[in-house]
Amino acid sequence: MIRVGIIGATGYTGEEAIEILLRHRQAKLTALTALPEECGQIQDIFPRLRGRIAMAVEPLDLPAFAASVDVALGCLPHKVSMGFVPKLLDAGVKVVDFSADYRLRDVALYEKHYTQHTDRANLAQAAFGLPELFRKNVVGKKLVANPGCYPTCAALGLAPLLKEGLVRLDRIVVNAVTGVSGAGRKASLPYHLPEMNENLFAYAAGGTHRHSPEINQICSDVAGKPVNVLFQPHVGAFDRGILSSIYAEPTGDLSTAKLADLYRDFYHNEPFVRVLAAPPKLKAVQRTNFCDLHPLVSADGRHVIVFSALDNLIKGASGQAVQNLNIISNITETEGLL
Amino acid sequence: MIRVGIIGATGYTGEEAIEILLRHRQAKLTALTALPEECGQIQDIFPRLRGRIAMAVEPLDLPAFAASVDVALGCLPHKVSMGFVPKLLDAGVKVVDFSADYRLRDVALYEKHYTQHTDRANLAQAAFGLPELFRKNVVGKKLVANPGCYPTCAALGLAPLLKEGLVRLDRIVVNAVTGVSGAGRKASLPYHLPEMNENLFAYAAGGTHRHSPEINQICSDVAGKPVNVLFQPHVGAFDRGILSSIYAEPTGDLSTAKLADLYRDFYHNEPFVRVLAAPPKLKAVQRTNFCDLHPLVSADGRHVIVFSALDNLIKGASGQAVQNLNIISNITETEGLL
Amino acid sequence: MIRVGIIGATGYTGEEAIEILLRHRQAKLTALTALPEECGQIQDIFPRLRGRIAMAVEPLDLPAFAASVDVALGCLPHKVSMGFVPKLLDAGVKVVDFSADYRLRDVALYEKHYTQHTDRANLAQAAFGLPELFRKNVVGKKLVANPGCYPTCAALGLAPLLKEGLVRLDRIVVNAVTGVSGAGRKASLPYHLPEMNENLFAYAAGGTHRHSPEINQICSDVAGKPVNVLFQPHVGAFDRGILSSIYAEPTGDLSTAKLADLYRDFYHNEPFVRVLAAPPKLKAVQRTNFCDLHPLVSADGRHVIVFSALDNLIKGASGQAVQNLNIISNITETEGLL
Amino acid sequence: MIRVGIIGATGYTGEEAIEILLRHRQAKLTALTALPEECGQIQDIFPRLRGRIAMAVEPLDLPAFAASVDVALGCLPHKVSMGFVPKLLDAGVKVVDFSADYRLRDVALYEKHYTQHTDRANLAQAAFGLPELFRKNVVGKKLVANPGCYPTCAALGLAPLLKEGLVRLDRIVVNAVTGVSGAGRKASLPYHLPEMNENLFAYAAGGTHRHSPEINQICSDVAGKPVNVLFQPHVGAFDRGILSSIYAEPTGDLSTAKLADLYRDFYHNEPFVRVLAAPPKLKAVQRTNFCDLHPLVSADGRHVIVFSALDNLIKGASGQAVQNLNIISNITETEGLL
Repeated sequence: MIRVGIIGATGYTGEEAIEILLRHRQAKLTALTALPEECGQIQDIFPRLRGRIAMAVEPLDLPAFAASVDVALGCLPHKVSMGFVPKLLDAGVKVVDFSADYRLRDVALYEKHYTQHTDRANLAQAAFGLPELFRKNVVGKKLVANPGCYPTCAALGLAPLLKEGLVRLDRIVVNAVTGVSGAGRKASLPYHLPEMNENLFAYAAGGTHRHSPEINQICSDVAGKPVNVLFQPHVGAFDRGILSSIYAEPTGDLSTAKLADLYRDFYHNEPFVRVLAAPPKLKAVQRTNFCDLHPLVSADGRHVIVFSALDNLIKGASGQAVQNLNIISNITETEGLL
Repeated sequence: MIRVGIIGATGYTGEEAIEILLRHRQAKLTALTALPEECGQIQDIFPRLRGRIAMAVEPLDLPAFAASVDVALGCLPHKVSMGFVPKLLDAGVKVVDFSADYRLRDVALYEKHYTQHTDRANLAQAAFGLPELFRKNVVGKKLVANPGCYPTCAALGLAPLLKEGLVRLDRIVVNAVTGVSGAGRKASLPYHLPEMNENLFAYAAGGTHRHSPEINQICSDVAGKPVNVLFQPHVGAFDRGILSSIYAEPTGDLSTAKLADLYRDFYHNEPFVRVLAAPPKLKAVQRTNFCDLHPLVSADGRHVIVFSALDNLIKGASGQAVQNLNIISNITETEGLL
Repeated sequence: MIRVGIIGATGYTGEEAIEILLRHRQAKLTALTALPEECGQIQDIFPRLRGRIAMAVEPLDLPAFAASVDVALGCLPHKVSMGFVPKLLDAGVKVVDFSADYRLRDVALYEKHYTQHTDRANLAQAAFGLPELFRKNVVGKKLVANPGCYPTCAALGLAPLLKEGLVRLDRIVVNAVTGVSGAGRKASLPYHLPEMNENLFAYAAGGTHRHSPEINQICSDVAGKPVNVLFQPHVGAFDRGILSSIYAEPTGDLSTAKLADLYRDFYHNEPFVRVLAAPPKLKAVQRTNFCDLHPLVSADGRHVIVFSALDNLIKGASGQAVQNLNIISNITETEGLL
Repeated sequence: MIRVGIIGATGYTGEEAIEILLRHRQAKLTALTALPEECGQIQDIFPRLRGRIAMAVEPLDLPAFAASVDVALGCLPHKVSMGFVPKLLDAGVKVVDFSADYRLRDVALYEKHYTQHTDRANLAQAAFGLPELFRKNVVGKKLVANPGCYPTCAALGLAPLLKEGLVRLDRIVVNAVTGVSGAGRKASLPYHLPEMNENLFAYAAGGTHRHSPEINQICSDVAGKPVNVLFQPHVGAFDRGILSSIYAEPTGDLSTAKLADLYRDFYHNEPFVRVLAAPPKLKAVQRTNFCDLHPLVSADGRHVIVFSALDNLIKGASGQAVQNLNIISNITETEGLL
C-alpha cells in the first residue's frame, strides 16, 4: 500500500485527488495539509466527502509529513511549490507536482512567464508527466511535473499530427473553452453566479496565457522541431471540462479516414484516450480521466480540425497525477481511474 | 418629464432600475451615485448598457443631486439608507427607498431584526409601497418604502385568502426559492459558479430571515388580525426570480374553482398580477414586473396551496419601485413596465 | 461473484446502475437488455462509458437472460415490469424492481393511481427495499421493490419524528424540488434546455403525484398509525438531486438540539444517512448514495422542519437498488457505493 | 403606424419579434399566424406575454392577412417560406424573410445546400438585410432577406479587415459557439436538459454548416474578392447568444491599436455595433440588438483575432428584422431596439 499525502488539499484539485484515492486499491491517504487558516476536518471543508473519510487537514510539518507518506501530491501554486519540493525530495518523498514550477525546461521561458526559478537542480531531474506522450521518462522518477489542463488537452489532440509531420508547425490555432473550476476555488465577481451564468467569453487574448509556452514545449518535443501554437482560452458557464477546437493547415493530402486510422493507431494502447467518429461532448468526459478526440479534414480539404475534450480537474489535473503516481509507484496505471 | 436619480446605482437593483427608466417615456435619469470606490461611467460598470446610456456615476453630492432630481430611487442597504433619506426629503426630493429602514412600522421589531432606528419621524410618514394592496396610501406620498422581494411574492399570494378569512392565520408556511441575484452583486464562495451551479439549499432556517416580520406586517394589515407565517427561504442555481409555494389550512369548505374566482376578482384591475389556471413557471416572470399566481385546494381538501412567482429584481425591487415612482408622480402606473 | 443483468438499461437509472456496478468488487454485469429499437453497444448509447465497458444491449431473451444472471435490476416502467417479474422469479432470478408495481401493498390503492395489478401473488412476497427503515424485511428476499426517489427522500427525513410520535400525523407538508433527470431520458418541450434553463415550477399540484400513496404507506408503517402527508413536487433547472423541505406541527415541546440527538441516534449505524448541523446542499449529495438530513425547530417553536437531500438517480434509484442487491446477495451493504 | 404581421409566430424568433414590437412606437402587430395545430391565443403559447398582448394566432388566410398588414415578418423555415413570399408580395405586402430562401444570390449554391429554388424572380429583387454592411441596398425594398445568426456575427467581425484587405482571404477560421435556442423550439434528446446541461460540443464539423456559403457571400461582397472561410459551429449549455472567435493571418504589419482605430472608424455611425477594448461577454449582448466586437493582433504579431458576440434571436434574427422593417418603412432604424 502506497502512502499518499496531499499538500494544499483544500482546493478543487485536492478534492478530486481525494475522491480518486478513496477508490484506489493500492494507495491510501495518510496526510492532508493546507495553509493554517484553511485547516480543519476535510469532511467539513468538502461536505460531500463526509461518511467516506474523516481526517484532519493540518499545516505542513515537514518531518512528520515525510515520515508518513511515500508520495506527495503537491497541489500548490507556482513559486510556492518550489519552496517545498526540494525539502520533500531530500526527505525521501516522491513528488507529483501540480504547479508550473517543474514543467518548463527552459528556465528563461519560465522566468518570463512566471517568476524567478529557485530550484534549477530539481528542474533538471523532473519528468514531464504526460504519460501518453512521455511515459518512458516518468518511470522511476522521484519528481514528476504534472502538466497543465489546457496543455494536456491541446497536446493529446495534436500529437499524432505533429509526430507524422502532417501540418504546418506555425499555423496552428487552439481555441479552448474551460469550465469555471479552472479558475480555482476563490470567489471573484466575474464568476459570481449571476454574472457568469449563461455567460461565455475569451480571456488572455492573443496568445498571452501562461500555458502557451508549455503547449509549445510539448508540441516541439513531439514534432522534433519548433512548434508555435496560438492558444486562445475562453471560459464558459459550466463547472468543469475543457473543449479544444484545434485548427491546422495540412502540408499534403489528407482525409478524415486517414486521420482516424492514424489517431487510432497512435493511441492504440492508451487506456485514457478515446478516438471517436464524431465530435466529443464535454459531458462524456466530465468526472472521468478520459481525453476524447475527433480528428477530421474540412470539406474543402484545406484544414485539419481536431476536437479534444477532457475534464480539467481529472485528466487535466488530479486524475493525471494519480496516473503518474501509479507509474512511479509501479502500480497498474489505470488503478483508481476507471 | 420627471427627473430621477439613483443612489447606489452599481448593484443589481440599480442596473435594473436604469434598464426600466431607459424605456420610460415620462421620466429621465439625471443622476447616478455610488460609493467613491465604485464610481465610473455606468456603461463601463454595466457593459450591457453601453450604446444606450453614457453617464457618470459620482459620489453623492447632496445639494447638487437634490437640484437635479425630482425623485430619488434609494438602492442602499438598511441603516445606510436612513442616513440619507431625511436629507433628501428636507431638500425637497421624493424618495422611493429600497432598504428595510421604512418598512416596519413597529420600531422595536425593526430594531430587533436590524439595528437602531435613527429616523422615526419619517418612518411615521412613509407609505408601504405595495400598490396592489395599499395603493391609496402611496398616492401623494413623499417617501415610499419599497417592499422586500420575498414579502411582495408571499403577500400577493396570500392576500385574497387573508382578506376573506379563509385560512387559519397561525398555520401558514411559505416555502420560497430565490435566484442568486437576491444575494446581491458581491462575490462569495457559496455563490462562486462551481459551488453554486446545479445546487439548491435552504438558508435562514426556521423563520429567522429578516423578511419574516415584514411578511407578517403586510399579512396582518390585510387580514385585520395578527398573522404569523413561517417563512423558509432557499437559494437555487439561477440568476433571478422567486417561486413561493404557500401552504395553509382552510377554515371551511373551499374548492379550487372558488379560489380561482376569488383571486380573479381580487386582482381584477391589477395590471401586474396574473391569476393562472396552472402552477406558474419562473421563466414566464423573469425580466417582467408580473407576479403570477395559482391558488388551489389539495385533492383531499385539507390544504390550500398558492404558488406565487415574480422576478426578485423587477416586481421584487426596481419594477415595483418604478410603479411607486409613477404613482407618486401622477404618471400612468404601468409606464415603463409593460 | 454475483452475476447481474439490467433490464431496461438505456435510461438514466440503467446508466447509473452500470456506473456503480463497474466499481463493484463482488458483482459483475453479465447482461443488458432494452426494447429492440433501443439496442446497440452500451458504450455507443452512453459514450461516457466507452473504454470502461464494451457490451451489447440486446432484446430480452428470457431463458438466455435467466441463465446468465443471478440478480436482475428491473429498470422498467410500471405495468411493463409486472409482465416480466413473474417469469424472472420463476426462472430462479432474484429481482430488484425499480417500478411502482410491487411497492404498494394495498392493491386498490395501486389500481387507483396506476393500473390493474396482474401479479398479486408476487406482490405479497415482495420486500419494500428501503434498508434504513425495513432492512430486516429485505434480507433473504427474492423480490425487492426499490422505492421511489421522492418517497425515499421524504421518508428518511420523517422517520425519526414518526417513530417517536413527535408531530401531528395529519399536518405534514413535503415540499420537494427535483432535477430534470427525474422526468426520464425522453425529450419533451418543457425540458428542452431553452425552456427549462433558469426555470422552476410546481407540478402534480395539490397532492396528486403518484408517489403520495407510497410516502403515506412508508410513513404509516413507521408511525404505526395512518399518516397523511401533503406531497408537493417541483422541478428545477438542474440535472439531478432532490431537496425536500418538510414542515410538521410538533405535538409537544421540542428543541433543535433534541431533534439533532434523536436523528443522530436513529441513524447511528446507517452508512448512507448523514445528519448535519446545517441545511444540506444538493451538490454534496449529487453522484453519491447519501441522504443528508437537517432537522430543526422553528424560532417560535411552532414548527418542526426537516431538510432532506439525495440524488434521485443514486439513493433515489440505482444506488439504493445496489444496496438491496447487496443485502439479498449477502454482500457488504456499502460495496460499490462509497 | 405600420401594421405588422408575423407568419410562423410560435417559434423563438416569433416570440422575440412580438416582444420587440410591443415596445415599438411606430409599428403595431395586427396578425399572427402559424400551422393549424400550433394555433391558439399567443398569451397561452408564450405565457410570459400574458397581460401585455391578447391576440389569436390563426392559420394563414392570405387575403385577410394581406388586408391587415403592411409588412410581414416571415419566421418560416427555408422552402416553406418561398411558397408564401411571392403571394405576399403580389398582394402588396412587404416581407422581411427570416429563412435562407432569399439570401444566396447564387441559385446553384442554394440548391446544393438547401433544395430546389422555386422563386428566382423575387430572389433577384431581394435585398440582403445586414444594414451595417448593405444599408443602401435595403432602402426602398419590398423583400428583405434577413441574414442568418452566425453569418451576422461572423461578417460584422470580419468586415473592416476584409474591406481594407488586411488579412489573407483563404486562411480565415470562424469558431462559433451558440446557445441552444439556435436549434429552435423543438424538443430533441441532445437538448433535453439532463443531456445538455453542463455540455458543450461541435457540430457540422469541417465547414459543412449551411451558413458557410452565406458567410462567404457576405465576406466576398465586402472584400470585393472571393473569400473562403472555415466556419465551425458549436453549441453550449445556455439559452441564447453567439460568441465567434475569428482567426486570420495578417497580410502585413498590424497592431491592436491600429485595429481598434479601424474598427471604431468603420462602425462609427452604427448604433448597434460596439467596439470594445476587451473580449466581449455574451451576457452583455443577450436580449439586446448589439453586436460587440474586439479585434486584436496576437502577442507574436502572426495572427489577427476578432471576437464577435450577439444574441442569436435579436441581432441574429428578430432584432435585425425590425431594423430592416424600420428601414423599408422609413422609420428611425433604432426604433423599438434600444
